Amino acid sequence: MRVANFNPGPGALPVPVLEEAARDMLNWRGTGMSVMENSHRAKAVIAMVEEAEADLRSLMGLGQEWAVIFCQGGASLQFTMIALNFAGPAGRCDYINTGLWSTKAYKEAKICGANPRLAATSEPDDFTHIPEAFDFDSEAQYVHLTANNTVRGTQWKQYPKTPAPLMADMSSEFLSRPLEADRFGLIYAGAQKNMGPAGVTVTAVKRELADRARPDVPSMLSYPVLIKNESMYNTPPVWSIYISGLTFKWLKNTIGGLEAMAEINRIKAETLYRLIDQSGGFYRGTARPDSRSHMNVTFLLPDQELNDRFKKEAQAAGLEGLGGHRSVGGLRASLYNAVTQDDVNKLVEFMREFQRTRG
Amino acid sequence: MRVANFNPGPGALPVPVLEEAARDMLNWRGTGMSVMENSHRAKAVIAMVEEAEADLRSLMGLGQEWAVIFCQGGASLQFTMIALNFAGPAGRCDYINTGLWSTKAYKEAKICGANPRLAATSEPDDFTHIPEAFDFDSEAQYVHLTANNTVRGTQWKQYPKTPAPLMADMSSEFLSRPLEADRFGLIYAGAQKNMGPAGVTVTAVKRELADRARPDVPSMLSYPVLIKNESMYNTPPVWSIYISGLTFKWLKNTIGGLEAMAEINRIKAETLYRLIDQSGGFYRGTARPDSRSHMNVTFLLPDQELNDRFKKEAQAAGLEGLGGHRSVGGLRASLYNAVTQDDVNKLVEFMREFQRTRG
Repeated sequence: MRVANFNPGPGALPVPVLEEAARDMLNWRGTGMSVMENSHRAKAVIAMVEEAEADLRSLMGLGQEWAVIFCQGGASLQFTMIALNFAGPAGRCDYINTGLWSTKAYKEAKICGANPRLAATSEPDDFTHIPEAFDFDSEAQYVHLTANNTVRGTQWKQYPKTPAPLMADMSSEFLSRPLEADRFGLIYAGAQKNMGPAGVTVTAVKRELADRARPDVPSMLSYPVLIKNESMYNTPPVWSIYISGLTFKWLKNTIGGLEAMAEINRIKAETLYRLIDQSGGFYRGTARPDSRSHMNVTFLLPDQELNDRFKKEAQAAGLEGLGGHRSVGGLRASLYNAVTQDDVNKLVEFMREFQRTRG
Repeated sequence: MRVANFNPGPGALPVPVLEEAARDMLNWRGTGMSVMENSHRAKAVIAMVEEAEADLRSLMGLGQEWAVIFCQGGASLQFTMIALNFAGPAGRCDYINTGLWSTKAYKEAKICGANPRLAATSEPDDFTHIPEAFDFDSEAQYVHLTANNTVRGTQWKQYPKTPAPLMADMSSEFLSRPLEADRFGLIYAGAQKNMGPAGVTVTAVKRELADRARPDVPSMLSYPVLIKNESMYNTPPVWSIYISGLTFKWLKNTIGGLEAMAEINRIKAETLYRLIDQSGGFYRGTARPDSRSHMNVTFLLPDQELNDRFKKEAQAAGLEGLGGHRSVGGLRASLYNAVTQDDVNKLVEFMREFQRTRG
């Protein structure tokens, strides 16, 4: 029996993707091997990785002025790579702080010897919204932000105009809506939200920007090295790319692209926010309404005991992964691409019933 | 139809491991989700990672004086991590050069600002054997070597006594034989040879050594940070750890441990070397006999045309992955743990027949 999966990441994957992966486990594309047992230099694997990249480019509308690479190490390693490639020791860079992951990115820039600066922060308001005022350093080599804040349930609706190239951690909203890519110099996303299994990270970076990266960077952390080797400087995480590639095809062919996906995601999120807003205060959203995320819906019940009971009873009812991040507590429903409207309807039904009997 | 898989890595995985992974794809351990869709903070996933670590420790006989972590980025990122954690800018370190991967490790230490030095090299003999004489720097912070040389088909039979902690890239021989772990300060191995899918790297490091690591290292590259967070500083590559864990159980329960595995591997390798040595010079092994690897058997035919024809006809006969590394050409049969004696017998039969008809 499958559950309704509201995990914050790793999270739900499309069932047809899992079914295809299971079916082809012992003999993938007629190679007589699992995709994991093929050499990464085999024609079939190179073709698969190229297909994944092409499908991703087509979904996102990324032209050849962008390099697209599959990396390892998650978003956390990108924090380091961005600082090393584009700021370096004593380099200047701006960070916008919207919560836990932004803070981590800022800290890694410091460890790399760069001088990161806060151009904006919503910390004084406990990260309940996206900042509106910015103080950019005209000498900064880049500006970094987190597009969707998984922990706090906030999401950018409009991106700021920045004097330096904008670099964005898109992990928890990647491929959930169309993106004005031209606003950015570099975007990156760990796979384990909307794309595939943990273990691969997509980075898209404008080639003219990558060309200006610092030369003194370890090979595995150097964007130019990874780009030149077309994601195969060393053995790439083939399985994670493979599952991500199947998800790209599902997004293109079954869902119909990012406009269609965004509309499905909008309705899912609105279904849940409506229930919260109409609960007479029994459920309380923690993000300011104008900053609410379509990916992670964070909310609280009147007291801790009810929070705990909700989590426990939801899990017993087949609604998985509703606990808030361990740093903030509360509740959180993550509505990634593979979470269906039917899953959300089940959750809303459960929430109505919970309020009726416990409220 | 499954092929006989002699790929150099990614390579063959045990069929029962693949069958279990396929079977549990939509509902792993009764969670109602794939293992990939579970949160890495879920009890079932934490238990799975702990089991994998415990099985690995038991297979290798690693006590609590060792930290064992699952990393990302392959052996190539370990090259950088070792230099950053244990040498650092202007630090001194010794490298033993036995081929392509040793050279890469050395180069990364240089990029990190350390002063790597060659304590021995078999480059003058075209890397056909393991060095016998060493010139260690008594001030070096560590000595690095590559245990098995995938490209050249050489393998250490006895490790040198070193004045500084010995660090070894074990990627292509990991878990293929018992290991005198106490000879080492740190060992590491990419999964994609004897363990599981590309995307995870195991590192075992003596705790007292890790405690002396430099503090100014980016979090994702810091051994102490990864150890303290028990492989979960950020989302780990759950699928790759899961498949590796299934392989550890197969090694323990089906094979019977590393002594038994080593014996199977010895017989596989000897079957193939015997055929080569008895071919009257038609097949010529490229490694010096006393340095021959049990994992990667490298050989040549009398001319390039025969090499090419061999590769092509072998592939048509269901014998996969026999091409030599692109840097050296020739032929190579990789006999990792999941390659069976039956696979090797098929190869030997093919080689006899090829010599009979083309020799």
